[in-house]
Amino acid sequence: MTDHTPGAPPVIVLVRPQLGENIGKAARAMLNFGLTELRLVAPRDGWPNPTAGPAASGADIVLERAALFDHLADAVADCAHVHATTVRKRGVTKPVLTPEAAAHEIHGAPGRSAIVFGPERSGLETDDVALARTIVTVPINPEFGSLNLAQAVMVIAYEWSKGMDLASPPGTLLDPPAPQDEFEGMFAQLDTMLDGAGFFHPPERTSATRRTLRTMLTKPGWTSQELRTLRGVLSALDGKKRRRG
Amino acid sequence: MTDHTPGAPPVIVLVRPQLGENIGKAARAMLNFGLTELRLVAPRDGWPNPTAGPAASGADIVLERAALFDHLADAVADCAHVHATTVRKRGVTKPVLTPEAAAHEIHGAPGRSAIVFGPERSGLETDDVALARTIVTVPINPEFGSLNLAQAVMVIAYEWSKGMDLASPPGTLLDPPAPQDEFEGMFAQLDTMLDGAGFFHPPERTSATRRTLRTMLTKPGWTSQELRTLRGVLSALDGKKRRRG
Repeated sequence: MTDHTPGAPPVIVLVRPQLGENIGKAARAMLNFGLTELRLVAPRDGWPNPTAGPAASGADIVLERAALFDHLADAVADCAHVHATTVRKRGVTKPVLTPEAAAHEIHGAPGRSAIVFGPERSGLETDDVALARTIVTVPINPEFGSLNLAQAVMVIAYEWSKGMDLASPPGTLLDPPAPQDEFEGMFAQLDTMLDGAGFFHPPERTSATRRTLRTMLTKPGWTSQELRTLRGVLSALDGKKRRRG
Repeated sequence: MTDHTPGAPPVIVLVRPQLGENIGKAARAMLNFGLTELRLVAPRDGWPNPTAGPAASGADIVLERAALFDHLADAVADCAHVHATTVRKRGVTKPVLTPEAAAHEIHGAPGRSAIVFGPERSGLETDDVALARTIVTVPINPEFGSLNLAQAVMVIAYEWSKGMDLASPPGTLLDPPAPQDEFEGMFAQLDTMLDGAGFFHPPERTSATRRTLRTMLTKPGWTSQELRTLRGVLSALDGKKRRRG
């Protein structure tokens, strides 16, 4: 049974990878971003490869489950959407997607997706690319293209993971700003102290100065706890003055 | 003159990196995505480091231009926006951004941005994080967090590079946050006053209290003008105390 769940995690296919170490690194990159299904097409040094494990830094489950194939066509036989990664577009006549756009397609597409990567040095052959429906290219600095296999896998896996909500969305740990009256209480305390210190001179500038202060002090959106800390600061400064006064 | 160009490329700051090889790999990751400015804070094995070059795979220009600092505060002194990368959020009370959101901020923000990375194993110390206005966390598989330093740098650089084709938003109406050293000047003034007022008691709580204060005061991202106003406030409060004292 083919998995027709929309947005099923994509399969990562490495075609004729050369070094076991790079297979391990690719597995690590995958698992960091929640991908687990690796398929290997005719790895140069056979499979399993003893140098893959150490490079995987613990992503053993990906290596253990890796499936071996002789031909790319077999490796992607159950995949509805095959994307071929290339660094340079050599006269291709297929749609070229960024990793971000490819991730969107994968999340929205029913059926399995595969992302295919070529050998370390040479990249995918034209015949391999021909199997794919789209090309995925990581846009890199045209004056310094030095993205290795595991890095390319990582960018793809990372983009895919962004649609998955792996971790809690950012900012949820933050406390909300305090209610306005707590801010006003702090501001009134500061205002009284500043008035006593002769800060609001000359009188015709008082309201503008107060506005400036209010603008900068409302900017942070301090929490109740932070406002309590700030009032502690003000009381300390005021208390010392009074004790000395 | 501060660089007020919206979306200036961010500075990558590596704090106490351990292996020269990882510095080289970080440089390679940077240059792949068009970043060139690297700053090193107290690298464990000194600088230059002979193992960095081979690992950079040709990104020598980044290593040659890398600047060396003893302290993080100095390394980010000219940066208006300091983002600290952490893997785990340990009770932080700063905004937490994804790499994508951080990239958007950097593209939209006037003034220099810095992205700060900690040592390979331990990550940034709490005091390092305290210098930053936001936290940037790469959301990874919670059951397999194994993103190395160069990979983390790569994700950040990659996200930044994606925004380079976009027209930079105007962002000129708002003044940028002041450079970090202006903030530090204000903070030192307040610290001295609070110390004199006996605020930092008991002594064993002093550094935690200072961190709390620093966190809440870095939150607004005050402009140079606002920091001047705040220093005026502090001087007024201090001056009155002295006049009366």
